[in-house]
Amino acid sequence: MKSEITELPHPDRAELRLADVLFALSDPDRLDIVRQLADGPLDMAQCHLSDPNVPKSTKSHLMKVLREAGVIRNEPLGRGRRLSIRRDDLEARFPGLIGSVLGAVGTVHADGSGVNDR
Amino acid sequence: MKSEITELPHPDRAELRLADVLFALSDPDRLDIVRQLADGPLDMAQCHLSDPNVPKSTKSHLMKVLREAGVIRNEPLGRGRRLSIRRDDLEARFPGLIGSVLGAVGTVHADGSGVNDR
Repeated sequence: MKSEITELPHPDRAELRLADVLFALSDPDRLDIVRQLADGPLDMAQCHLSDPNVPKSTKSHLMKVLREAGVIRNEPLGRGRRLSIRRDDLEARFPGLIGSVLGAVGTVHADGSGVNDR
Repeated sequence: MKSEITELPHPDRAELRLADVLFALSDPDRLDIVRQLADGPLDMAQCHLSDPNVPKSTKSHLMKVLREAGVIRNEPLGRGRRLSIRRDDLEARFPGLIGSVLGAVGTVHADGSGVNDR
């Protein structure tokens, strides 16, 4: 079986649009993914949704919205895919925004709900 | 003719949800409204959309999304309605968020596009 490791398109820093970035962040599951990436890049397989029964296609779509808005980078690495927040690009275009969102997400999940159950 | 000045419901500070706030801010027209309110409250009639042909019902809906998410307050004042950003509530719940969005919106409109044409 051949694994399909493809380079996906990412918007350039100059192409990032505030409304798109905010929309990508406006969903609890997508916020959860971003929160998991707050401490550094993760392999796609390490990134979990709070509901483990979510289909893989749904997870892929959540990643796609985040990537196309320029919030995350999704790159092939070995046989997997490496996800990371585009902090430098976001900070350059929208200073303080991603930091405030990550801070708020930490607050939202202060009750321990959500991710990192496995 | 009797003007209908009604008190509209607003979520309490503790009820504000990050995803809802980000969603409310994820639309160019709604961002434009928020930008106009950045320097202080405005009467509804002073708040203009970039496209003057937008129906009044659309404008009302944009205001509703912003109000229901807790981004703006929409209160009766005299014969009109007074709109304001709920800065204290937003700052208390999501520190730095509304400031970074307003800063970024200023950047987005640095080309002079958008509002304040009248």
